[in-house]
Amino acid sequence: MLYSLLAGGKRIRPIFLLATIDALGGETDQGIPAACALEMIHTYSLIHDDLPAMDDDDYRRGKLANHKVFGEALAILAGDALLTHAFYVLSDTAQTSDPELQLRMINELALRAGPTGMVGGQTADVLGEGSPMTFEQLADIHTRKTGDLLVCAVRLGCYVAGANEVQLAQLTRYAREIGLAFQIQDDILDEIGDEQKLGKQVGSDRGKQKSTYVSLLGLQGAQQALREHVDLAKQAVRAAGVKPDLLLALADFMVSREC
Amino acid sequence: MLYSLLAGGKRIRPIFLLATIDALGGETDQGIPAACALEMIHTYSLIHDDLPAMDDDDYRRGKLANHKVFGEALAILAGDALLTHAFYVLSDTAQTSDPELQLRMINELALRAGPTGMVGGQTADVLGEGSPMTFEQLADIHTRKTGDLLVCAVRLGCYVAGANEVQLAQLTRYAREIGLAFQIQDDILDEIGDEQKLGKQVGSDRGKQKSTYVSLLGLQGAQQALREHVDLAKQAVRAAGVKPDLLLALADFMVSREC
Repeated sequence: MLYSLLAGGKRIRPIFLLATIDALGGETDQGIPAACALEMIHTYSLIHDDLPAMDDDDYRRGKLANHKVFGEALAILAGDALLTHAFYVLSDTAQTSDPELQLRMINELALRAGPTGMVGGQTADVLGEGSPMTFEQLADIHTRKTGDLLVCAVRLGCYVAGANEVQLAQLTRYAREIGLAFQIQDDILDEIGDEQKLGKQVGSDRGKQKSTYVSLLGLQGAQQALREHVDLAKQAVRAAGVKPDLLLALADFMVSREC
Repeated sequence: MLYSLLAGGKRIRPIFLLATIDALGGETDQGIPAACALEMIHTYSLIHDDLPAMDDDDYRRGKLANHKVFGEALAILAGDALLTHAFYVLSDTAQTSDPELQLRMINELALRAGPTGMVGGQTADVLGEGSPMTFEQLADIHTRKTGDLLVCAVRLGCYVAGANEVQLAQLTRYAREIGLAFQIQDDILDEIGDEQKLGKQVGSDRGKQKSTYVSLLGLQGAQQALREHVDLAKQAVRAAGVKPDLLLALADFMVSREC
């Protein structure tokens, strides 16, 4: 569990959660349990995705994948344990003064990470392997596989900071656009990124004949789509009536990031 | 998810949960979400346990194991989805009038199913494979791997029905003894059970040179231990000050069950 949790991820989801709390003028400290829970869920999904039966990746973040170090059985169990422990952390009654809100946050996390969310997206991805995908199928998969957990991060931040309905709706829109931008940049980096900075081989999607934004839209088309989604994300932040700076900077980071 | 969930398990954990509520004079209807969550957790653990990297079992409950029907990738994901969905079901705010109690139940489930509970027991089991175990190691593994989820079932029933501290402590003791009895009977059935009734091959533990209660205590010793744990379970029920009939009958079922 610790090997993968401390393998040096970007902490994107915790950062979006805490940035959302900050944008709403809330106390970022109160978001720490949810931020940890999100990162545990994200990390478990990477451990399971890397398994030979799934994406069969030997490296992650420049280090050996969990199952390459500990074997498949322990990698499966480390993932299961991280997933379960996320809900332990988020249900700690000592951490909350508002049990009903905490319950809503757990429900949101289970929804976004579960069969209609992240795991559903990964399932659709596995089922679609080997056959060409339409743009709509690809977008649906990524909306769930990557997008839902980012949406969850921002919405949990909204709950912690007591966002109103307009803020919740606009920041959900923001996160949805960010999620798509994030995945498009992932596909672009797999095509033209720096292996050293990425900590993994580039061109692996093409090698596996995977449908990606680059394979469906071309490199220029994907870069254009990336900018459009980032612009839409920024519009949503401005419409939310919050302190916008950090969330706008994070949107720009989606374009400039190199790993 | 449905294939394994509806493959015809004994529903032991939901039954213990509902029987506990009944013994305490509570409303069994109120335990249904928790009962479903428990069965989802149990089912996911079976799917993952049967994987080639784990116990490599082709059959479960007389039917093909999940990965034999859907492939390993989807079996891993079905398990992940069931685990996550359990927490979705248990955090449904529409189902509860007492959010703090609901939160405590989620925390209990995550604790018992997680890295210090069920997954921890399974991990110790994997790590101990191939080398002989002491009786203490075996008992520790089963206390966590099988016992913790039964303890969880009874304790969730206690929460739902508003048990007092004495009832909670005695019924926890009851569940702990039942858990050990359950595993001992499993080991006995693997030695002398009826393959047709069990829906799986007998002698598989011996074939794998696994340490079991039978290999460590002998058949008679295991049968003796089974009776002792069932007696201790019954003592705990009588000390709890509850309507005892159903819980005592379930204790006897631990000895008489053939599958």
